[in-house]
Amino acid sequence: MSSKFKNAKRIEGLDSNVWIEFTKLAADPSVVNLGQGLPDISLPMYIKEELSKIATTDSLNQYTRGFGHPSLVKALSCLYEKLYQNQINPDKEVLVTVGAYGSLFNAIHGLIDEGDEVIIIVPFYDCYEPMVRMAGATPVFVPLRSKPVDGRKWSSSDWTLDPQELASKFNSKTKAIILNTPHNPLGKVYTREELQVIADLCIKYDTLCISDEVYEWLVYAGNKHLKIATFPGMWERTITIGSAGKTFSVTGWKLGWSIGPDHLIKHLQTVQQNTVYTCATPLQEALAHAFWIDIKRMDDPECYFNSLPKELELKRDRMVHLLESIGLKPIVPDGGYFIIADVSLMDADLSDMENNNEPYDYKFVKWMTKNKKLSAIPVSAFCNSETKLQFEKFVRFCFIKGVHLWQETTLLMLCSFCCILSRST
Amino acid sequence: MSSKFKNAKRIEGLDSNVWIEFTKLAADPSVVNLGQGLPDISLPMYIKEELSKIATTDSLNQYTRGFGHPSLVKALSCLYEKLYQNQINPDKEVLVTVGAYGSLFNAIHGLIDEGDEVIIIVPFYDCYEPMVRMAGATPVFVPLRSKPVDGRKWSSSDWTLDPQELASKFNSKTKAIILNTPHNPLGKVYTREELQVIADLCIKYDTLCISDEVYEWLVYAGNKHLKIATFPGMWERTITIGSAGKTFSVTGWKLGWSIGPDHLIKHLQTVQQNTVYTCATPLQEALAHAFWIDIKRMDDPECYFNSLPKELELKRDRMVHLLESIGLKPIVPDGGYFIIADVSLMDADLSDMENNNEPYDYKFVKWMTKNKKLSAIPVSAFCNSETKLQFEKFVRFCFIKGVHLWQETTLLMLCSFCCILSRST
Ligand SMILES: Cc1ncc(COP(=O)(O)O)c(C=O)c1O
Ligand SMILES: Cc1ncc(COP(=O)(O)O)c(C=O)c1O
Repeated sequence: MSSKFKNAKRIEGLDSNVWIEFTKLAADPSVVNLGQGLPDISLPMYIKEELSKIATTDSLNQYTRGFGHPSLVKALSCLYEKLYQNQINPDKEVLVTVGAYGSLFNAIHGLIDEGDEVIIIVPFYDCYEPMVRMAGATPVFVPLRSKPVDGRKWSSSDWTLDPQELASKFNSKTKAIILNTPHNPLGKVYTREELQVIADLCIKYDTLCISDEVYEWLVYAGNKHLKIATFPGMWERTITIGSAGKTFSVTGWKLGWSIGPDHLIKHLQTVQQNTVYTCATPLQEALAHAFWIDIKRMDDPECYFNSLPKELELKRDRMVHLLESIGLKPIVPDGGYFIIADVSLMDADLSDMENNNEPYDYKFVKWMTKNKKLSAIPVSAFCNSETKLQFEKFVRFCFIKGVHLWQETTLLMLCSFCCILSRST
Repeated sequence: MSSKFKNAKRIEGLDSNVWIEFTKLAADPSVVNLGQGLPDISLPMYIKEELSKIATTDSLNQYTRGFGHPSLVKALSCLYEKLYQNQINPDKEVLVTVGAYGSLFNAIHGLIDEGDEVIIIVPFYDCYEPMVRMAGATPVFVPLRSKPVDGRKWSSSDWTLDPQELASKFNSKTKAIILNTPHNPLGKVYTREELQVIADLCIKYDTLCISDEVYEWLVYAGNKHLKIATFPGMWERTITIGSAGKTFSVTGWKLGWSIGPDHLIKHLQTVQQNTVYTCATPLQEALAHAFWIDIKRMDDPECYFNSLPKELELKRDRMVHLLESIGLKPIVPDGGYFIIADVSLMDADLSDMENNNEPYDYKFVKWMTKNKKLSAIPVSAFCNSETKLQFEKFVRFCFIKGVHLWQETTLLMLCSFCCILSRST
């Protein structure tokens, strides 16, 4: 075959993807899919109705402003002004992108050079590593480590960075750190003290911070989401990333945004205008309408920013209970809509799973999908190759699911439980 | 300011953009905007209705398959199988992207390396050059040249490549040529003979062809759109790019696609999964429905693929007439929905336009927008810096406009005409 058919070097080795592999596996209609974060709850009526109305207006189906539809950037700046307690210029400090994914890519591609180092906290949302590699930069990994829990429930807050270990990763080549709070897959919500350690290092080493806050509204009782961009000295060096998919449970809209200072956002804009140019107009217009509805009732429990976490907290507690009832040890998340659990306790017989080189969790999920008709995502997919072993006993379940799926899940889990019980007796 | 705030080198100098500049200029509501290709005609009812319906289904607002929503890649493969008279695998030979823009980017980023050369035909759709530069490659330009017309109407087919000149641009470093037919901004529809010259060179030098065919349905009487991928030896080396925005006049949907052999498409897929991951589900589902409606009636004059070019041909003729009636010399396009005209004949007084370093057409458009309340796009924006002079007497007008805009345009143009007449007498 012609050598001209080869991939460009920048994407060498970046072709495997956990979503593609496990989504295919879960496509069997008899499988209950608790893998990918596909909300299976009732959407807010108004967001669907807005899109439905807007679709019929000719002009709202045509190109709009490349860096964000005017009504959407206005809504976003109004919302984030409240959260930052500071003015935000809708044209220069906000960029609408193709999902949070697009914001991550624009930030990395617009700011990170070949030879730079970028600190990534393990486990991490899986695209961070290949995006950094595609930019020709070197990812430098630092793991969250678990404290002993002494019989208490295991919580995502038991997983922390060792400040010394983190500091040792910074040097003059460090261009940025990627932060994710609330965290996927652990559900960790970083505390003020934890964020201050990171902020201090960013300032000391003059480093950028790419803060992925797509689950910013999904925090549970006793926790508070904090924005590192509001810490002293951090606004000027932070890109904060959000997602319509997570904020309004419309993952299929693929709209996200970056908020930050003009001197950084302008580089993300340059990438945008040379990659996709603009985002879908009808979706942006509908999203702007939805934002205005909820911006006007932010103190109201009905506001989706308040009602969704309330709804999800119940589902979280139910999932914790379910996992515990079959003998697993879940790590109770403080935020987000995922929960991870140690599955090695289940002592599944994986001996007939092919591909013995795969991490334990990959084999376990394949086994569970095939034999228990339940799918999930292996946590080592969120790790670099060196840290996979540290996390391969963990599997991630998604709990933003409706009543129907819950019933099926409960049944399936109880079945599995019985099998294992009967095998072990 | 911290040096860490600087842009990554790959985007150095790529921040200016003609659309952003001239769209801002045309934003004044008293200006008739014939600049950007914003369809201002009635959209097909069914495409709006499909989206309106789909918006209300919860599951169709969630993530779908990353490389293209299953029903859409199926519709695309069915359509293009008819045109290629060959089987097309919907999963491996089709990729749905964020507009044709996204396909261009994925192709260039996935296949072109630093140090490669990429041939670009001038004038060119403006993103080709910065996309190639962002990949670290060298664009090599070759201009379309005009034949003498001896009193005949000037046609886009009078603009051709010199085969010798084109051949001289190919060498062992040439990785790809970017072709655009029907052509924006000239409206040129490449003939079989012209495409054969290009195909022969691609094969001789083992070069890829990125064929931007977003206006594939918009060809006027006496012309036929041909796909270079169907020429012998070309399928294996060609990525063919289409756009929902152009096919169904919904530019705001930002959905496009690439068709090509598995061994090339897979590299575009790798880029997609590390940049945006997936495209908007409700828009993809609605687009699939629209395609099925028109695929089933392709021989019917009502089919949008047939009815839109008929509608546009009348608008083209009207625009030609209008431009001629005010003393300009338009180049009659054989395809697309743009027309370019030599504006130097108007002899406008641009002496009070600032920024004397700008090309003539930039100043002319700014003058026309300010003084005649009519906006257009300077053709030198579609040129590299060395060829701008060759095209700076030309301005591009868009003619996919409704009755209302036509009336305004006619009035404005006749006004301009009178002013110039009265000044010259
Ligand atoms: C932490 C995190 N960041 C980014 C994304 C991508 O979001 P979007 O769908 O808006 O691109 C996700 C999606 O799951 C996520 O969990
Ligand atoms: C020749 C050409 N290619 C690509 C595009 C971009 O199309 P899309 O809006 O689908 O990204 C355009 C839009 O004007 C175009 O004229």
